[in-house]
Amino acid sequence: MAIIYLDNAASTWPKPPNVKEMMAEVIDDFAANPGRGGHALAMKASKTVFRARVQLSRLFGIQNPNNLFFYMNATQALNQAIKGFLKPGDHVISSSIEHNSVRRPLEYMHRTSGVDVTYVGPRENHLFDLEDFEKAIKPNTRLLVVSHASNLTGVILPVADLGAMAKQHGIAFLVDASQSAGVLPIHVEEMNIDMLAFPGHKGLYGPQGTGALYVRDDIDLVPLIHGGTGSQSEAVDQPTTRPDRYESGTANTVGLAGLLAGVTYVMEKGVDNIRRHEWELVKRTITALEKISGVEVYGPGVDIERVGVVSFNIAGVDASEVSFILDQQYGIATRSGYHCTPLGHQTAGTEARGAVRVSYGIFNTEADVETLIQAVQEIAAAFE
Amino acid sequence: MAIIYLDNAASTWPKPPNVKEMMAEVIDDFAANPGRGGHALAMKASKTVFRARVQLSRLFGIQNPNNLFFYMNATQALNQAIKGFLKPGDHVISSSIEHNSVRRPLEYMHRTSGVDVTYVGPRENHLFDLEDFEKAIKPNTRLLVVSHASNLTGVILPVADLGAMAKQHGIAFLVDASQSAGVLPIHVEEMNIDMLAFPGHKGLYGPQGTGALYVRDDIDLVPLIHGGTGSQSEAVDQPTTRPDRYESGTANTVGLAGLLAGVTYVMEKGVDNIRRHEWELVKRTITALEKISGVEVYGPGVDIERVGVVSFNIAGVDASEVSFILDQQYGIATRSGYHCTPLGHQTAGTEARGAVRVSYGIFNTEADVETLIQAVQEIAAAFE
Repeated sequence: MAIIYLDNAASTWPKPPNVKEMMAEVIDDFAANPGRGGHALAMKASKTVFRARVQLSRLFGIQNPNNLFFYMNATQALNQAIKGFLKPGDHVISSSIEHNSVRRPLEYMHRTSGVDVTYVGPRENHLFDLEDFEKAIKPNTRLLVVSHASNLTGVILPVADLGAMAKQHGIAFLVDASQSAGVLPIHVEEMNIDMLAFPGHKGLYGPQGTGALYVRDDIDLVPLIHGGTGSQSEAVDQPTTRPDRYESGTANTVGLAGLLAGVTYVMEKGVDNIRRHEWELVKRTITALEKISGVEVYGPGVDIERVGVVSFNIAGVDASEVSFILDQQYGIATRSGYHCTPLGHQTAGTEARGAVRVSYGIFNTEADVETLIQAVQEIAAAFE
Repeated sequence: MAIIYLDNAASTWPKPPNVKEMMAEVIDDFAANPGRGGHALAMKASKTVFRARVQLSRLFGIQNPNNLFFYMNATQALNQAIKGFLKPGDHVISSSIEHNSVRRPLEYMHRTSGVDVTYVGPRENHLFDLEDFEKAIKPNTRLLVVSHASNLTGVILPVADLGAMAKQHGIAFLVDASQSAGVLPIHVEEMNIDMLAFPGHKGLYGPQGTGALYVRDDIDLVPLIHGGTGSQSEAVDQPTTRPDRYESGTANTVGLAGLLAGVTYVMEKGVDNIRRHEWELVKRTITALEKISGVEVYGPGVDIERVGVVSFNIAGVDASEVSFILDQQYGIATRSGYHCTPLGHQTAGTEARGAVRVSYGIFNTEADVETLIQAVQEIAAAFE
């Protein structure tokens, strides 16, 4: 049974063929430490990491590639941004669709440093209004942090407008691009994004084990990790030089070579073409699912563009059972449960039962959608 | 020109062939998120990560594999251990050969939380005495943290004795096994090691981007990273379940598959055989280097066993120039400078000029040593 993979919001799969090739080349030819030795193999490793930094900077409109720091995943990047930026007495504004990778660091800072957090919810049809964020501003508001798009409903937040508003009020703006990097246009300068966190293994088609954080020149964070940087070794504290200040320990050179291949593929395809492709598949999915008796689809409906994510439930059947049957009987990989966003489920009204989530990538086709719909029809009929 | 790679203390190279194969298989077959979905591809990913946990636990005598947590490198593991364990008012004992991955987190805790740190130095011939550590104990000493072996001189610390002493005094014992994992015997129970941090890309022959921390059952750390764990998603704080509590965000599945292949290779070869092989190469190197006029070798000499590291200088020539000539003229990859251990250089008396470091791995041969010695002779003669 051929597998139809509809769990791209967790990790995209398959990867473009050159991802594997680039990684194999690094393992064979130059798995030495970037920035840690003057010999030829180490120079080759440094060059690969730097090329990944430059390519990603191009994609996101980042002027200085050294303002981009590599981590193991977006979660680590978000922890560096949130814990490194906030100070006791600060107020933060966030949204009610956040992933635990934003919410849990915020709640940790609330518990341990008395940081005050406001979660802004949507108005009707899952849509957020700029005004509600503006109303939440207090004199001690120092940070606005939002997901660019929900990993549950796919709903897109008005990041450019929020950026303009944050700038106007002198508030730093952090965007979690876990569901949007490689799928929606992002330009940190034009959108006034001060910090941008994103994973390498989702819409950028790199391997797992990669993620990054962009931090504007004039924002200084407390480093989350202290250690060897290969520079200013004699200093007791971290060097002030970027990216070294925020990148201690050996980099994931192999993974970053794969990420370079992935993001290069994405840029060749064109972010806008990818966005359109996924939105077509989503529209088709929502339209067909809504016609099936007993199926409830969450999110803003077919008239409002979202990223490649559709969550639904079948009346009378546990979400995890639906995913299990889809996997075992139809070879369709989906995900069930809470998707690490209990906040998002409360907002969508699914906190009691979770949901089945399908999520699309570059390599999914209309035929995949047809197979899914057919399968959901059969399951819904069987449980009716 | 064939490359002779003598920078294994930074990253071992080449890797055993099955490392690349295992990684390629994961990229092709199951680059889904471990622990994040119920579908077949995600189960396969979970299984690989679990197998890596089990295999590493076997190597280090860890009874419960869920007490082993995966990170991007040993630096992150050490930061989790040190910052997660220490509280204001604590006293820590460490050694004077520590890497910046131990020293900088300790100094950070000193600056921000008033943690008090004592660095114990060696007696004659670079050797450490248990008594000096015992004398450093204060009523508020809660942690002893040492490198198992120096990344500059290769000197080995008496970890089993230190563990017994720490246990007797009720002090937690953290070992940085960056230069010893896969090379020296380590058994966390027998050596009373409460926390063990190690990289995947050095003596365990996995790829860069992998590292781990073992933490004994009854030690609770403040998590360094908060985020999605795929479990207890509804909880505002991290789950208490291990390893989830300390592993937020997507794992480096591809890298961990490579690490599994690497550590399996090491266990087949036998840690003791690897240790003997590297020690033979080191003895040969020290003996020959010491005969060359103008060459000074650092460390405890040829009578005291060390790990596969030899540092030296040639009179009148900059260390970085020696490494440059070795690389360009002879195709020999070494490392020059401070090796992220200014403390170690102060202890070795080389803080003013750094040193050239050669470091061996499984795949180095006696012929590599001969070529190195020949080259150093020629360089020393040229600058005499």
